[in-house]
Amino acid sequence: MAEAHADPNKDAPYDLIYWHVIPGRGEHIRLCFVEAGVRYSDTAFNEGGMDTLHAYISENNTGDERNPPPLAPPILKHGDLVISQTPNILMYLGPRLGLAANGGNDIFKINELALTALDGLSNEVHNCHHPIAIDLYYEEQKEECLRRVKDWVKHRLPKYLGYFERVLAGKASGEGPWLYGGVLTWADLVFFQTLDGTTYFFRKAVAAARKSGKYDRVFQHYEAVKARPRIAEYLPSVHRQKYSNYGVYRYYEELDVEAE
Amino acid sequence: MAEAHADPNKDAPYDLIYWHVIPGRGEHIRLCFVEAGVRYSDTAFNEGGMDTLHAYISENNTGDERNPPPLAPPILKHGDLVISQTPNILMYLGPRLGLAANGGNDIFKINELALTALDGLSNEVHNCHHPIAIDLYYEEQKEECLRRVKDWVKHRLPKYLGYFERVLAGKASGEGPWLYGGVLTWADLVFFQTLDGTTYFFRKAVAAARKSGKYDRVFQHYEAVKARPRIAEYLPSVHRQKYSNYGVYRYYEELDVEAE
Repeated sequence: MAEAHADPNKDAPYDLIYWHVIPGRGEHIRLCFVEAGVRYSDTAFNEGGMDTLHAYISENNTGDERNPPPLAPPILKHGDLVISQTPNILMYLGPRLGLAANGGNDIFKINELALTALDGLSNEVHNCHHPIAIDLYYEEQKEECLRRVKDWVKHRLPKYLGYFERVLAGKASGEGPWLYGGVLTWADLVFFQTLDGTTYFFRKAVAAARKSGKYDRVFQHYEAVKARPRIAEYLPSVHRQKYSNYGVYRYYEELDVEAE
Repeated sequence: MAEAHADPNKDAPYDLIYWHVIPGRGEHIRLCFVEAGVRYSDTAFNEGGMDTLHAYISENNTGDERNPPPLAPPILKHGDLVISQTPNILMYLGPRLGLAANGGNDIFKINELALTALDGLSNEVHNCHHPIAIDLYYEEQKEECLRRVKDWVKHRLPKYLGYFERVLAGKASGEGPWLYGGVLTWADLVFFQTLDGTTYFFRKAVAAARKSGKYDRVFQHYEAVKARPRIAEYLPSVHRQKYSNYGVYRYYEELDVEAE
């Protein structure tokens, strides 16, 4: 079991390998480093960074003796460790960056909340502009998108907002605005970022949800993360990349629908 | 960090809370218990099991002092721990059931592989019968499904089969048929189950992929898991539920397309 091992990479630098131009899924990793005040390198801002990224995800890469090849970014290199998959990287970093409440089995509660936010407010939202195929352009599946978003804002958005409202109302969330254990964890950063992106995509529907008063804890949580000193300093900086129509969170006026 | 804590639930029974009738995502958890030879209870086979399940996912459930409410099954109860999300439960169980190679940072390599199999060969396949909305019946989105599966078998199926072929060819997979470290881990069980379900859904496309000779390691891996003594005994038993058109993996003749 993991418990028995010392961490050989404890003092190694953290290298994030992710696309430039979009915040994307890499942004979840960045927010953890920012909140923790821990330095990291980022291929999005390094010269030659995209060459590094493409070498990792090349079809010729079979990994090395200790690491399988990654399918896609984000990728984290930490010493001799190379891992991918957003929730996996977060679970690795959470305890190391002091974002895991009391550790122990708390990491499984936090991972559960992070996975649920990523499922609902990232993967499902992504599929709102690519319901048919990731390989096709949005413009090639516009009609299907419109059909999908109408259902999504009506059924799925309230499902996830209601779920997190319930989590925040529950005893396990503890005192204060956070999702678990009364302290800020990586799940709070993930939920913040997924709601921020969803708000960019679905301006009208999220504004209506906020106004409804049904999800007050959710929006207080959002503001509480945004007001964390290091996050507040980061968000207007050049390192916080803008959403654009290459990423998970996009803005198409015709898809910005209200729940009927 | 997790490393510092003893496990207070070490000797508690394992209770799986999952839907009856379908293998679904709960099947990944079951295969771990089966391979490890560890007893567990399963609401799919217990009288009153669905009442238990519905109480957990009720909109009135706000969890308890230590556990947030789960959004959806599978749910694992182990002593006072209640956790949900398939990859999360697997990561909790893997080291406890001896399915985590050497533990330590190996769990992050294994989780990466499990998440990738679930993304590609479970979530993406599920969306092949529900591209527009989970809340609508297949029959209400048939046309979109047909468009989606044609793209999926052409682009996505080979992407994932090729990826796992590459993992199996890589040094980190070690000797023998397994994905990581030369031993069977929970990622092997997940990849087996996702490929088994995908084969049920896309009979023609998977048969063609097998015949192509491009993915020999992948299909040898599949056969190696299937031949594990406890798995081989389990698969024909009543506890291995049949795929049906309520679950992730379905069969619609019109969607059983070949790559063009």
